[in-house]
Amino acid sequence: MKVISSKELLVNAISIVQRAVSTKNNISLLDGILLEADGVFKMTGNDLEIGIECNIPADIRREGSIVINSKIFGDIIRKMPDSEILIELLDNNDVLIECENSVFKIKGNPSDEYPLLPEIEAEKSFKISQKIAKDMIRQTIFSVGDDEDRKILTGTLIESDGNELVFVAIDGHRMAVRKTANGVQDTSFSVVVPGKTLNEISKIIEPEDDEMEIFTSKNQILFKIDNCKIMSRLLEGEYLNYKSIIPDEHETKIRVNTKELLSSVERASLISINEKKYPIKFDIEDDVLVISSNTEIGNVRDEIAIDMEGKNMTIGFNPRYFLEALRVIDDEVVDIYFNSDIGPCTIRPVETDEFVYMILPVRIKS
Amino acid sequence: MKVISSKELLVNAISIVQRAVSTKNNISLLDGILLEADGVFKMTGNDLEIGIECNIPADIRREGSIVINSKIFGDIIRKMPDSEILIELLDNNDVLIECENSVFKIKGNPSDEYPLLPEIEAEKSFKISQKIAKDMIRQTIFSVGDDEDRKILTGTLIESDGNELVFVAIDGHRMAVRKTANGVQDTSFSVVVPGKTLNEISKIIEPEDDEMEIFTSKNQILFKIDNCKIMSRLLEGEYLNYKSIIPDEHETKIRVNTKELLSSVERASLISINEKKYPIKFDIEDDVLVISSNTEIGNVRDEIAIDMEGKNMTIGFNPRYFLEALRVIDDEVVDIYFNSDIGPCTIRPVETDEFVYMILPVRIKS
Repeated sequence: MKVISSKELLVNAISIVQRAVSTKNNISLLDGILLEADGVFKMTGNDLEIGIECNIPADIRREGSIVINSKIFGDIIRKMPDSEILIELLDNNDVLIECENSVFKIKGNPSDEYPLLPEIEAEKSFKISQKIAKDMIRQTIFSVGDDEDRKILTGTLIESDGNELVFVAIDGHRMAVRKTANGVQDTSFSVVVPGKTLNEISKIIEPEDDEMEIFTSKNQILFKIDNCKIMSRLLEGEYLNYKSIIPDEHETKIRVNTKELLSSVERASLISINEKKYPIKFDIEDDVLVISSNTEIGNVRDEIAIDMEGKNMTIGFNPRYFLEALRVIDDEVVDIYFNSDIGPCTIRPVETDEFVYMILPVRIKS
Repeated sequence: MKVISSKELLVNAISIVQRAVSTKNNISLLDGILLEADGVFKMTGNDLEIGIECNIPADIRREGSIVINSKIFGDIIRKMPDSEILIELLDNNDVLIECENSVFKIKGNPSDEYPLLPEIEAEKSFKISQKIAKDMIRQTIFSVGDDEDRKILTGTLIESDGNELVFVAIDGHRMAVRKTANGVQDTSFSVVVPGKTLNEISKIIEPEDDEMEIFTSKNQILFKIDNCKIMSRLLEGEYLNYKSIIPDEHETKIRVNTKELLSSVERASLISINEKKYPIKFDIEDDVLVISSNTEIGNVRDEIAIDMEGKNMTIGFNPRYFLEALRVIDDEVVDIYFNSDIGPCTIRPVETDEFVYMILPVRIKS
């Protein structure tokens, strides 16, 4: 193998494939990046859960392949001058990396045993703008569960009925639903993608209007972003019927400024060291929302002017669930719907029906 | 105690005094900030090594004092709206913190047992621009030792003969000397200030031309910066006679671009996982400096054009010592003086004699 490419292109590709390189895998070959020159020059990272492959424009002088330690390789390329870099496989699996007056010779590993990425026999595919996908991940990922005993909830449900694309995350105490009708194709599917995969994807995609393409099969999902392919297994099992969880009635509705509410909940949460033990309390009465908390450190009371409809109400919440939802809502004003002090509460931006957030309340001592 | 001040002033003062608040002290009172309204409103942090006291412009409605947990207090003030904040001591050591529609009531501790800051009977004092002081700390602090058995070397020597102010740090393998004649008063003194103190000072002072004032006594040093006083004990004992360590002869001198050399040493150090085991090698010959390293990961070779005088030379170094010196030298070109492959090497910026850096070489296998 002998290839020449620019530092910029190489650094960019390394930063992407490194997201799939495991740092604590037992199989030491997986600490490496697979370099392959075979018509095209490509790099691959693979931790057996996520695999990423990037094509890099390069002048290929000789074909071949080698696996090279990801950290060392990345550090070397990043520290090279901003210029053309030569990467050449020598005898004995030595890899030569040369740029201007700098020459490295690093021990590589033969590529024969590097695990192949699965071939995906795509059944369905759709396109979506990178910017929208990034938003949809950001606005749901925090509600993904972390309970390995309810494995299916550690993923995000991604489904389409051909009219609307929906991302759903539920952790048992709360749910985030984000929809878009933007650019949805006439394809219906329903898959559950591991939260970890979406986390990495969201770091790779740029908040731009360029499209990415998504292919799904029974067990796998493939994201095509620019010159890169990201492959991940899907979670198996039946996801919750999220539509049936969203209450369609309410006893009380309030309309409130998102930032003001966020600031108040942030303040109230400062003294609840242990969120489960110390919920925050919402008292809704006469167009005023009073948020308060009382813990061994002290107490706090915050007042916000609201528009309200329906009954007065006192209800308790884990402050973190409110904070994480309010932080990802870009809209200036939200409506919050309450259903008694034990029923689920829903948050909906006033200006759009693309986002629904639901939280179960916590019982508070009266 | 009852005071009113602005969020901005309070946040600023808290950020400074928190640098002296211990998070792992056995005396729980030291987790707190002392608030005192007594003619002026001031905050104090004190971990018994460093004490910081800041005066804050405030409307004092009632005098008094209380100690309040530093983290909670800081978090609350930072999350308040950008407005006037009322701080009031109530019964039972409760502290009321109120801003617009937010009210906190936090448990405080009586101030009687909070340790007093030492009174400094200043013997000498001098003034220096904050910017220059910040530079002098930055350009020496990395050479301070960390060996508690050679306690005196864990500090920086600060001395003046009335003409020149000098900062010196020596860790046994290297030395950094930074001088200035700028604004030096006719005061001679010599003190050793703990590295930790200078680290905190350098985070407090702004890179601006405003002056700070420094007072020294036998055991203590006091820095007056704007509305704040920072007090620290001095290290006791005799510091090394640093002047006698700087060699006044050399066998080889090279002149080299600082950034180019830094980049080369950074690259060479990438593969020396263990710096002590794998030094980097300098080969100086015919106006070329070759920097190389050979480790179990592989090898690297970098060439830089230099101007040289004197003998060809091969010499080894711990790369970290070179990196840390080159990173703080702002000058474009440096001269490096070598004294055989076992004698100390000195680095001096070409354009100024304010900075001298000395490194002991490491023996390399030939």
